[in-house]
Amino acid sequence: MKESSSEFEKIDVKDVHITGGLLAHKYQTVIENVIPYQWLALNDEVEDADPSHALANFRIAAGWEDGEFAGMVFQDSDVAKWLEAVAYQLAVTPDDELKGKADGVIDIIAQAQEENGYLNTYFQLKEPEAKWTNLTECHELYCAGHMLEAAVAYYEATGERKLLDVMVKYVDLIDSLFGREESKIHGYPGHQEIELALMRLYGITGNDRHLKLASYFIDERGTEPNFFTREIERRAGKTHWPNFHENNHLDYNQAHLPVRDQKVAVGHAVRAVYMYSAMADIARERDDAALAEACRTLWANVTEKQMYITGGIGSSDFQEAFTIDYDIPNDRAYNETCASIGLMFWAQRMIMLDGDARYADVMERAFYNGILSGMSEDGKKFFYVNPLEVVPSVCDKRDDMKHVEPVRQKWFTCACCPPNIARLLASLGQYIYLKSKDSLWVNLYGDSRVKVSLGGTAVLFEQKGNYPWDGNVHMSLSMEDEADFTLKIRIPQWCGNDWTLTVNGEAFPGVPEKGYVEIKRIWKNGDSLALSLEMKEKRIYTNSNVGANAGKVALMKGPVVYCLEEADNGSHLSSLILRKDGPISSRFRGDLLGGVNVLTAEGFRERSVSGRLYGERRPEREEAEMHFIPYFAWNNRGKGELLVWVRE
Amino acid sequence: MKESSSEFEKIDVKDVHITGGLLAHKYQTVIENVIPYQWLALNDEVEDADPSHALANFRIAAGWEDGEFAGMVFQDSDVAKWLEAVAYQLAVTPDDELKGKADGVIDIIAQAQEENGYLNTYFQLKEPEAKWTNLTECHELYCAGHMLEAAVAYYEATGERKLLDVMVKYVDLIDSLFGREESKIHGYPGHQEIELALMRLYGITGNDRHLKLASYFIDERGTEPNFFTREIERRAGKTHWPNFHENNHLDYNQAHLPVRDQKVAVGHAVRAVYMYSAMADIARERDDAALAEACRTLWANVTEKQMYITGGIGSSDFQEAFTIDYDIPNDRAYNETCASIGLMFWAQRMIMLDGDARYADVMERAFYNGILSGMSEDGKKFFYVNPLEVVPSVCDKRDDMKHVEPVRQKWFTCACCPPNIARLLASLGQYIYLKSKDSLWVNLYGDSRVKVSLGGTAVLFEQKGNYPWDGNVHMSLSMEDEADFTLKIRIPQWCGNDWTLTVNGEAFPGVPEKGYVEIKRIWKNGDSLALSLEMKEKRIYTNSNVGANAGKVALMKGPVVYCLEEADNGSHLSSLILRKDGPISSRFRGDLLGGVNVLTAEGFRERSVSGRLYGERRPEREEAEMHFIPYFAWNNRGKGELLVWVRE
Repeated sequence: MKESSSEFEKIDVKDVHITGGLLAHKYQTVIENVIPYQWLALNDEVEDADPSHALANFRIAAGWEDGEFAGMVFQDSDVAKWLEAVAYQLAVTPDDELKGKADGVIDIIAQAQEENGYLNTYFQLKEPEAKWTNLTECHELYCAGHMLEAAVAYYEATGERKLLDVMVKYVDLIDSLFGREESKIHGYPGHQEIELALMRLYGITGNDRHLKLASYFIDERGTEPNFFTREIERRAGKTHWPNFHENNHLDYNQAHLPVRDQKVAVGHAVRAVYMYSAMADIARERDDAALAEACRTLWANVTEKQMYITGGIGSSDFQEAFTIDYDIPNDRAYNETCASIGLMFWAQRMIMLDGDARYADVMERAFYNGILSGMSEDGKKFFYVNPLEVVPSVCDKRDDMKHVEPVRQKWFTCACCPPNIARLLASLGQYIYLKSKDSLWVNLYGDSRVKVSLGGTAVLFEQKGNYPWDGNVHMSLSMEDEADFTLKIRIPQWCGNDWTLTVNGEAFPGVPEKGYVEIKRIWKNGDSLALSLEMKEKRIYTNSNVGANAGKVALMKGPVVYCLEEADNGSHLSSLILRKDGPISSRFRGDLLGGVNVLTAEGFRERSVSGRLYGERRPEREEAEMHFIPYFAWNNRGKGELLVWVRE
Repeated sequence: MKESSSEFEKIDVKDVHITGGLLAHKYQTVIENVIPYQWLALNDEVEDADPSHALANFRIAAGWEDGEFAGMVFQDSDVAKWLEAVAYQLAVTPDDELKGKADGVIDIIAQAQEENGYLNTYFQLKEPEAKWTNLTECHELYCAGHMLEAAVAYYEATGERKLLDVMVKYVDLIDSLFGREESKIHGYPGHQEIELALMRLYGITGNDRHLKLASYFIDERGTEPNFFTREIERRAGKTHWPNFHENNHLDYNQAHLPVRDQKVAVGHAVRAVYMYSAMADIARERDDAALAEACRTLWANVTEKQMYITGGIGSSDFQEAFTIDYDIPNDRAYNETCASIGLMFWAQRMIMLDGDARYADVMERAFYNGILSGMSEDGKKFFYVNPLEVVPSVCDKRDDMKHVEPVRQKWFTCACCPPNIARLLASLGQYIYLKSKDSLWVNLYGDSRVKVSLGGTAVLFEQKGNYPWDGNVHMSLSMEDEADFTLKIRIPQWCGNDWTLTVNGEAFPGVPEKGYVEIKRIWKNGDSLALSLEMKEKRIYTNSNVGANAGKVALMKGPVVYCLEEADNGSHLSSLILRKDGPISSRFRGDLLGGVNVLTAEGFRERSVSGRLYGERRPEREEAEMHFIPYFAWNNRGKGELLVWVRE
């Protein structure tokens, strides 16, 4: 496997342009709304929102102004995520004014850094004596990881090293403090993130110390005697979060076992998938078969036992966590937007580990459903939690549903999801395409253009169509010289064998291997491919071990999960039943929700005959037309009910 | 209405003997197990259980021993409920040793009472300066109410006044402190209970001050300016329960509106039904039409919008409370045993208000299902919470299910339910029969004998059968002289019109009015009645507004709700489907669970074809025999799944 897969490289963000369709619409929404809004938020200029204070913290630490730290212990990471998103934007969509702002922020950050490299405004301003004493709870290494990702992205986008140098210096400090040597702290982060960031840094520095430090954090985790347990003892149980007993559970942050012994996904879902991403990176880089196998085992558990049909993960509000196999209730789902984003990070790394499109199937599922649902059509409101069944009056009243906001919110005190959506969408090109030695891998579909060097020549590869509403994808190549290389075209799992591919108008006879049709040939300028993925309306059923979905069906068309919304179907969605073998029709509506496909199906509405609560008569049925919209587009037309899994 | 209903009187507990069948079995279980166990608990003699300290508190307050108060702020009420249960037992089943213990306890209580009548060991020992300053949270009047109920019961059972005198003196003190007069506290209890207790006291004293005090507590409640709001302000927000924000919500204890303006049941379910019970008592006693109408409105809301099929109420763990109409999830149900007991209290008072058997239908539903489920077959373990759907592994893992214990517990820190079951079962005779001027009302069926004076003569009325497993009830009368009086025989709503009644072997032609067949005649010694209620196996459906039960059916036979249990049907009960028009057979099994009826039905078990989480193939069905047992008898054969509402 090493041979074929370790050659994978990410495509540089600046080499991909998203050119149209849903992807461009979402990309533009982020560029035009989310990143500017986030800038206002970081500067405390959003009316009727709690101040972020995140930039003020850096200015105070830099000595530019007086004041005290305010915000969460991980407030710095909001600045980092904004910078990372800005970097991706600048890579593709130059904007001098924006770059000026970002450079200004980087100047402050550089100034705030301590002489020895240390950089965390919470500890610098509020608890200078307590640095590195509460890794379990205080996100020091997490914040470092996000700023490191920003630094890498900014360097890759602009070629400018200032933030990168700051962060390399900080990494040097961390490297001098953490490790197995007796003089060092034998710790690791409470919230994983720096591991995958270090692997990104290693990708540009090639510095073995960066790889080793990432590996140390992964391999030390969960070993005995347990670092977190001892750290809590050293603090005599004193906690940063007195109302939140996360540190009573080692599985909350996946420190209950050495990572290679972890077979089942547990604990905080975002931490888990960030860690699994780093594990996959390291397994590939070090050709570590045992670590790779641990990744595959965890992948199977997450995606075949604990994942919602939307690619949502983490079914419990408490600890924002995985629970147990097959426990995926629709109404109380947590499904943090960030967790689905992390699942996408992990999926891409698994593709790079195994060269297998089944990971891309999950990546696509998460993207078009559980991730896009996190942002409103206008890019101004966000879901942190993404349930599959909502009755607003119940969410408003029941305490065990208090985490489910029935409408998207402007911002959050813990504002992790909106900037995470921003940085993902701004760098989406990296997920659409991958490159290995002489191959271009097409993992996602959507109008876009990638510039890539293949077979010794510069190739411009372009795809066009109306994905995800239509399965016809037209691909073309522009290049000066002809060249011998391979295209790896993903055949999504959702279309089974119902696809065709032509190359320059002639049917291509290949069968997919690991989900990719491989076309190796001498390509010439103007060559074209027409991929036709039959995008049928499909009824999807859940494993009968999942009690929540027993007797129920969900509709998909292509990668998109559909839902019933009150706006189209009235209230009491639970009283609707889909006709078992009725037809389902599909129609693209450009006027609706920014342009979406809708499905119409035959069904029934049940109504009780009497108004009594209980009775011997079955509710009566009347015929009802059922109208489905894409799940990601729900809740853009006011507060109302939602239902994905429908009785059949 | 006043004319016909205000003549109702409760039957004296000592005049009813439960003679056989399920009722006798449960009664004996309480006498032989619960009351003795509770005595050990009150004396801190139960191994591996937290000490109750409840009697120790009284001994310390009495000056009999040194020490400090321990336990909940309402710990005194455990002693009261035990005494009340003992009183009922002594009324029917004399036991000198037990009476000696009770008298000893009463001596301590009398000694603990302060000179001015005050009696509450928490405040006497722990916060003597804070008496009557935290009615919202500290249960002072609640404890007084329970001890008053015990005093009334003990007086009625034994004719001894010692505890009654103690409590009358305490009531005098309370009456001097609370009321609308300017010099008095304009407050009322945070946890209702004293209101109904005062009405019981009034029933034996006829003292108008007792009625007025009860009425004051009811009518003052929820008026503006709100007493609780001002009390919290006076305490500057200081709370007795720092981890429990109950006092932020006036609807938590039904103080959000004057009681006559309350149309919808809200807040803590036990408080609600205790209050509604007192409201019905007062409405009847004072012929208060508006208050009676408020009771009926609330009754309709509770029983037609918020009640589980088991007679469970309170669908939310948070605040142990009602939520909103039609929100009755099966897995996260709270359904506190005490709340169903309180519903039974209220139902009996509604019968006495309106002379209508529909209240008895609910009383019977609650008794045979949501109440009996609270106690294990051996009387040694108890459910506080009574869900209708349990997957133990999910309860053990999910935080939002942590209130659902998948197995009955030995005792609880807040030990309200077991003593409540004890006092209810020990006084069950009062609920089986009621008397009005010259009528005996038969509200519940079960082998029993009541001694009652009707038409000027002493009548011994007896019923025999195999209820609730069989609908044939044989009734007979023994009397010295013949006499002219009326029997009111309830025709349960569950049998519809499928019943027959013979008197001395001849068909009786009456039609029920308000659910009772009225037989007015000159009765003679040896007269007999044979009531035959056709007890079919019935499929029950829920109003289509209840999303949780959409597409599902529950089985009942007579008043008993049936369920699937893992012990009989294997795991994954959610994968079972009842055949729509298949036969359901019924069989009494004396060997099972103390003797219960079981149902067998045809159905299917769904199994996914692949092991995949999602797929396009419907799960396959295989035929499966489905075995149902009575809901109340579940969880007597180890830890396993439970399901009441089954797909059809």
